[in-house]
Amino acid sequence: MVQTRIETDLLGTQQIPADALWGIHTARAVENFPVSGRPVHPELIKAYGEVKLACAQINHQLGYWEDEAKADAIEKACCEMSAGLLNEHILVDAMQGGAGTSTNMNVNEVIANRVLQIMNKAPGNYEAVSPLDDVNLHQSTNDTYPTALKIAAIRLLRILEQNILALQDAFQQKEKEFADVVKIGRTQLQDALLTTLGREMSAYAEAFNRDRWRIYKCEERLRVVNLGGTAIGTGMGAPRQFIFRVTDKLRENTNIGLARSENLIDGTQNTDVFVEVSGILKACATNLLKVSNDLRLLASGPHAGLGEINLPALQAGSSIMPGKVNPVIPEAVAQAAIKIMGNDQVITLACSSGNLELNQFMPLIADSLLNSLDLLSHAALIFTQKCITGITANRVVCKNNIESSTATITALLPAIGYEKASKIATLCKEQGKTVKAAAIESGYLTEQEFEGYTSPEAVCKLGN
Amino acid sequence: MVQTRIETDLLGTQQIPADALWGIHTARAVENFPVSGRPVHPELIKAYGEVKLACAQINHQLGYWEDEAKADAIEKACCEMSAGLLNEHILVDAMQGGAGTSTNMNVNEVIANRVLQIMNKAPGNYEAVSPLDDVNLHQSTNDTYPTALKIAAIRLLRILEQNILALQDAFQQKEKEFADVVKIGRTQLQDALLTTLGREMSAYAEAFNRDRWRIYKCEERLRVVNLGGTAIGTGMGAPRQFIFRVTDKLRENTNIGLARSENLIDGTQNTDVFVEVSGILKACATNLLKVSNDLRLLASGPHAGLGEINLPALQAGSSIMPGKVNPVIPEAVAQAAIKIMGNDQVITLACSSGNLELNQFMPLIADSLLNSLDLLSHAALIFTQKCITGITANRVVCKNNIESSTATITALLPAIGYEKASKIATLCKEQGKTVKAAAIESGYLTEQEFEGYTSPEAVCKLGN
Amino acid sequence: MVQTRIETDLLGTQQIPADALWGIHTARAVENFPVSGRPVHPELIKAYGEVKLACAQINHQLGYWEDEAKADAIEKACCEMSAGLLNEHILVDAMQGGAGTSTNMNVNEVIANRVLQIMNKAPGNYEAVSPLDDVNLHQSTNDTYPTALKIAAIRLLRILEQNILALQDAFQQKEKEFADVVKIGRTQLQDALLTTLGREMSAYAEAFNRDRWRIYKCEERLRVVNLGGTAIGTGMGAPRQFIFRVTDKLRENTNIGLARSENLIDGTQNTDVFVEVSGILKACATNLLKVSNDLRLLASGPHAGLGEINLPALQAGSSIMPGKVNPVIPEAVAQAAIKIMGNDQVITLACSSGNLELNQFMPLIADSLLNSLDLLSHAALIFTQKCITGITANRVVCKNNIESSTATITALLPAIGYEKASKIATLCKEQGKTVKAAAIESGYLTEQEFEGYTSPEAVCKLGN
Amino acid sequence: MVQTRIETDLLGTQQIPADALWGIHTARAVENFPVSGRPVHPELIKAYGEVKLACAQINHQLGYWEDEAKADAIEKACCEMSAGLLNEHILVDAMQGGAGTSTNMNVNEVIANRVLQIMNKAPGNYEAVSPLDDVNLHQSTNDTYPTALKIAAIRLLRILEQNILALQDAFQQKEKEFADVVKIGRTQLQDALLTTLGREMSAYAEAFNRDRWRIYKCEERLRVVNLGGTAIGTGMGAPRQFIFRVTDKLRENTNIGLARSENLIDGTQNTDVFVEVSGILKACATNLLKVSNDLRLLASGPHAGLGEINLPALQAGSSIMPGKVNPVIPEAVAQAAIKIMGNDQVITLACSSGNLELNQFMPLIADSLLNSLDLLSHAALIFTQKCITGITANRVVCKNNIESSTATITALLPAIGYEKASKIATLCKEQGKTVKAAAIESGYLTEQEFEGYTSPEAVCKLGN
Repeated sequence: MVQTRIETDLLGTQQIPADALWGIHTARAVENFPVSGRPVHPELIKAYGEVKLACAQINHQLGYWEDEAKADAIEKACCEMSAGLLNEHILVDAMQGGAGTSTNMNVNEVIANRVLQIMNKAPGNYEAVSPLDDVNLHQSTNDTYPTALKIAAIRLLRILEQNILALQDAFQQKEKEFADVVKIGRTQLQDALLTTLGREMSAYAEAFNRDRWRIYKCEERLRVVNLGGTAIGTGMGAPRQFIFRVTDKLRENTNIGLARSENLIDGTQNTDVFVEVSGILKACATNLLKVSNDLRLLASGPHAGLGEINLPALQAGSSIMPGKVNPVIPEAVAQAAIKIMGNDQVITLACSSGNLELNQFMPLIADSLLNSLDLLSHAALIFTQKCITGITANRVVCKNNIESSTATITALLPAIGYEKASKIATLCKEQGKTVKAAAIESGYLTEQEFEGYTSPEAVCKLGN
Repeated sequence: MVQTRIETDLLGTQQIPADALWGIHTARAVENFPVSGRPVHPELIKAYGEVKLACAQINHQLGYWEDEAKADAIEKACCEMSAGLLNEHILVDAMQGGAGTSTNMNVNEVIANRVLQIMNKAPGNYEAVSPLDDVNLHQSTNDTYPTALKIAAIRLLRILEQNILALQDAFQQKEKEFADVVKIGRTQLQDALLTTLGREMSAYAEAFNRDRWRIYKCEERLRVVNLGGTAIGTGMGAPRQFIFRVTDKLRENTNIGLARSENLIDGTQNTDVFVEVSGILKACATNLLKVSNDLRLLASGPHAGLGEINLPALQAGSSIMPGKVNPVIPEAVAQAAIKIMGNDQVITLACSSGNLELNQFMPLIADSLLNSLDLLSHAALIFTQKCITGITANRVVCKNNIESSTATITALLPAIGYEKASKIATLCKEQGKTVKAAAIESGYLTEQEFEGYTSPEAVCKLGN
Repeated sequence: MVQTRIETDLLGTQQIPADALWGIHTARAVENFPVSGRPVHPELIKAYGEVKLACAQINHQLGYWEDEAKADAIEKACCEMSAGLLNEHILVDAMQGGAGTSTNMNVNEVIANRVLQIMNKAPGNYEAVSPLDDVNLHQSTNDTYPTALKIAAIRLLRILEQNILALQDAFQQKEKEFADVVKIGRTQLQDALLTTLGREMSAYAEAFNRDRWRIYKCEERLRVVNLGGTAIGTGMGAPRQFIFRVTDKLRENTNIGLARSENLIDGTQNTDVFVEVSGILKACATNLLKVSNDLRLLASGPHAGLGEINLPALQAGSSIMPGKVNPVIPEAVAQAAIKIMGNDQVITLACSSGNLELNQFMPLIADSLLNSLDLLSHAALIFTQKCITGITANRVVCKNNIESSTATITALLPAIGYEKASKIATLCKEQGKTVKAAAIESGYLTEQEFEGYTSPEAVCKLGN
Repeated sequence: MVQTRIETDLLGTQQIPADALWGIHTARAVENFPVSGRPVHPELIKAYGEVKLACAQINHQLGYWEDEAKADAIEKACCEMSAGLLNEHILVDAMQGGAGTSTNMNVNEVIANRVLQIMNKAPGNYEAVSPLDDVNLHQSTNDTYPTALKIAAIRLLRILEQNILALQDAFQQKEKEFADVVKIGRTQLQDALLTTLGREMSAYAEAFNRDRWRIYKCEERLRVVNLGGTAIGTGMGAPRQFIFRVTDKLRENTNIGLARSENLIDGTQNTDVFVEVSGILKACATNLLKVSNDLRLLASGPHAGLGEINLPALQAGSSIMPGKVNPVIPEAVAQAAIKIMGNDQVITLACSSGNLELNQFMPLIADSLLNSLDLLSHAALIFTQKCITGITANRVVCKNNIESSTATITALLPAIGYEKASKIATLCKEQGKTVKAAAIESGYLTEQEFEGYTSPEAVCKLGN
């Protein structure tokens, strides 16, 4: 039989396992919200620990705790929370109702009981250490939760930036490696002008360079926090000194350039900044989807496809067709990108649904945003490591296409003019010759000249 | 040190823990796809077990296994899979690349090794029992995966239907309970004609009745499966007898009215049926969002809101404002609804992105669809049990509104005509009287008449 | 100088051009809502005319107009509205605020003034014929607008069904025409098993067959109307006989199987049926997008693409590359499909945003739904007429692919077994031979046998 | 009978009305794309005129036209196009297939024929002035179209910025005007702490301030253009001098700080910048939707709603309920906001669907983006002018709420402590007294003290 303790709230009492670090508010929430089956994102819990720590430190400085040992224990427990050591005690569902109150109370209860453990007291002895009057002192869910979310998002953004940078680097490597692979460019999937495989890679690198920059700039948008505003941004219930000092302490601790919102009322109710950030993640997802589709296309074949590049083989693709290898990494990346687009819609809806002084759907915003950040990071990582760096060019295919495609004739125009070009086109059509053969046999160009006009240098020279 | 065994695939060899039920294909996939961090939905794994069982039974009947003990063991292992007993061995990520191949191979490997266990042989001894040549015999990912997905979806739809029915019932109970609570109706959030709280509940019940019917009809759309079509719907690699009999066996085993698609090519590549089903789930989500917003609004207050109903108190709402109780269940329901809308977009994008003979994003479709089904079920369940059944009416507020709002004057029109009605309106405006007081004091109506014209019977009578 | 008349409303007076058929409510709305710049959809105006006609006829029958000439003139004007003859006078913006009130009032005013014209009286003489007390008699925006919208949607659905049917037919024609074109199937864009171009067309035909069926069934969902419910569904202000008879009259006039909602309260406030219908249109859009992408891919080239089919050339594609022809119809179809997906999101958001007794965003729902219906119809039409019927097969490319791709080896497996197949694969790889050449030269198969195993009959035979 | 001329293209000949400024390419496109029924956005046509002008000027400078009169006439016609004088001749559908080729050709043809008119020559005399060899000289759709789109978008962004600024100003005015209106704040729609109506307005002003800033910064993202890159970004077909000088000329002419993309290959194929900009418009739409919903809520009533503010009455709201006035402007604004969210999805899908060297869905991107910009501008404008500036406060309601709501007790806590506060709460509950009455009668506070603790100064003081 499990030993229990009795805890009390507004609604009555409930039995809690005697040694549980969580308490009655957590128990209620777990019972109330069997929704997604997923826990709160660990990065949010860690950031919540940091918020609680800064608050505790300022409350300590302001003399709210006479008992130094207690104050120290509170700070210690907050540190453990911020180090991710107490994650397993945060039981509430990621998609809880209540604007994050249940997450905040779960955090408060776990810290309080952990403090009691540290002080060798029994969990549940809230007269000694109170989840509300100590751990949550001068705070509200409505200022701590968005603040923690912004810290968590910034931490994940920094990881993401590195992963996008690595992706950009990988494409830049390929740009160099494939600089001399001349090939047919395609517009609207139809053969168009000549280009090089290297320049195709450079276009991808450039797109991810923009993404990297945008992601880097996102941090600025998230740095303004409403900590100290308490329930609706008026700071009601918190002393002025606390409000003025707590964000500085949090900035100092986290090494993130956080600043207190100049308008805490706005900071508590308006969530457009999350829509903005999610929109930027979605722009990156757009690039990932476009590029992964391009790579799937360029690697299609091996015989009856474009077949201009080879993607690394990572796993067997079919039981019926033994040697079949599929572009599984671009496929996984594409799926992550699509999911991020879905999350963006969720975030948009949730953010636009806020009412008056608060957005009541903060847990959904948090869950979707942190999920998008993870997915984007993971997708960029496997894209880089398991796909891009291992791409090889199918030089023979590219070369054959150039020599045989009438699209190449356009590259010869500056040299031979329209009339001769038309004759070459006719020769190709009527006699089934390649462009190269027709050009040389017609006497308009030597082989060397043909090679010159279809060389990487000629193709990459800007304009005529 | 962990004992290992060596397994081999197209790409080379890999060390696998000696007693692992999964094998090299699973190991590759786990390494390749650290994407979502979530496993495949358990209901999909169970359904996959059922598909594998039906295939094994037909292969057995057709004499593909001489060793009866082996055949029996295969069927036993498939049964265990379909009972959910082997879920823990399905390690691949929910958002894997590869159209579901990794899930299929994980299932094949686990069943094969479980068969070996049953036969007292060592895991990995694939010459005795092969994941591919035995467990996957006459199958492809491309026919087994969509088939398993449809079975899983149907199972969850049946649960959902029950939960929506219960929600409808709960609103019908409230319809009766509040039949006599006359109140001001509102259009565009402005006071409009009189109605009853019961009729408001009846409108919700009716909306969920439509949802229930639509959800019930969804099963029909999902019953047509492409099992037997193998890789692209031509049935290549499978014997005709297998193709003709396997779906019948699966129908018999699952007790779901499955039928083989008449056009297996279409059945393998086109996924519009998932868009259709997701669209219907979204319609239900629309109703949940609308109704949950209405309830939040009707329960707003307690003083400075509409305050016409009370939602059950489930947990404390604020640390700063002690007695505050928030509409946390409608909030959780609304969040689930919004998430389902996001999932619908994901499903739409994924389904429209299929190329030629196959949709390469099946894992994302499966993940999103099954997630929506779960969320909708959970949301309906907590909505019913923790919110709707406990709603009480604030009869005093409703009555006071009727007596004081000029909107009530319209209800008196048939009795007193426009002129007198205007005079009452003027009296209310100029002297701050309630409509009731003005109507009676002006001598146009007795109190009894006023009560009569604003009675539930008068309000619910259709037309004048 | 324009002659004017003075009209009056709740807010005061306004000068209206003396001969304008619209009046002050229209003028206010035009001034208030310079939003989209687009007028209300003509089909909605026509349907509104039909609703007004049925109401007028019943009011006439019930004896509400003593003046027969007036009654006749009202019916005549309604008929003109329903014939589209008065569209130019409906000036209000498609995205007006107010749940459709401005459209209804614009319709009321135009009919009233047209009646006055018919009766040789001056426009604006509302004592003779009133927009409100005559044309809108026993009605509300909140029951007439959704009813008109459903009629308009049904009319467009019927056109759409024909267009999808024609599209399905066109693909079925191609199915027959290309029945003997054997080609490489592709999964995940990689060469897979053999199929025929005809069967690819059959898969498209089948998908549109499902769409056609679903679209046909949509009508049922839209037939239940709330006419007679007036402002909130209680029928307040309308006589019972009117309520009981008006929908029958409307059904009779329109030849659409309309029925009065059993729960008019629900019918007035809940809009999930539009989400359902839009979801079905979106499923069709999904198929259009998938198929148009497939066709763009199959027609890619002409040299450096898949090049298995040719789309009709409809216009020059490039000034720089003279002979370039682009797949412009699939591109237009794809864009329409994407737009419909966006509209579906708009409809979902608008429908889920209804508050209490009414959905205040009906104009947006109407605009988006009718736009989706048009786009889908137009897209299906040009797809059929300008693209599908003119597709030709590139038989040489398909044949060459079969002869050279190692994917073809799988088709030989039943005949020669794995060992010989592997040897053929090795020959191809090491000596650059085609599969056909390797198979014949190795002596495993005669040319006739090779042709047999890769014949349409062999490929289309279900299973082995 | 209409006089015609014969024009010729790749596909054959067509009869064109003799005096039409458009030609055969336009005619083909009009026939091919009866899709949306809407023309290309006028701002895009004007910007196209500016692009054509800059190209013509550089071509002129580089000596490509010997005939000065012709060069002058070309420049004159381009100016007319950029002034919007030729819009009526741009007939192609907004949702045409073909990446914008038809719009470009329509522009080319109209300018060429207008030049012929200016030179007193007959339209269609393309040997004198050619749409392709003169007007389109050294250009491609693929560089001119995105360039024109960016210019058009920047122009509309500048208008939008002004409109959002005006909206922000209007809310700041209201902030001052309502600075002394103390009221109950609400979180999760439940009564929470005291605030002022002025501070609610300040939160809205602040949100739109962020929007204004973001919109201002959008221009930077759109300034990098790919003009000179021709078909795929290699500049093939254009002389170097042209490429190097044309963007400078365009910058000079437009007074927009345009710059040539450093990577024209990327600039031609990647469209993530439109996703980014659309995401920012969507963030603004989120704020508009949230604020318009708040205003609808605060203005709900007049009796049975929150009734804290009054919106200007703009039109009659109901035929059945004579005095009813609805929040039609917030409703129109909300609908525009929702539409913009739908457009964002369309843009995201279209942008992520680009293939290789080009995005083939540019017309859809352009149509949706320019539509969002218009809608947002229009919505902001009517919101400001017809709603926000006319808002008045219902001071009596706000005051009554404060005096009666137990939420006010929290404001007294710092003065009287928890115990006395609880007693006041009990008095309110048991005897139905207002908080004010209970507080004074209990002797805990004088009336003056009560007024002090609930004064604007007390409520707006940050913290305790």
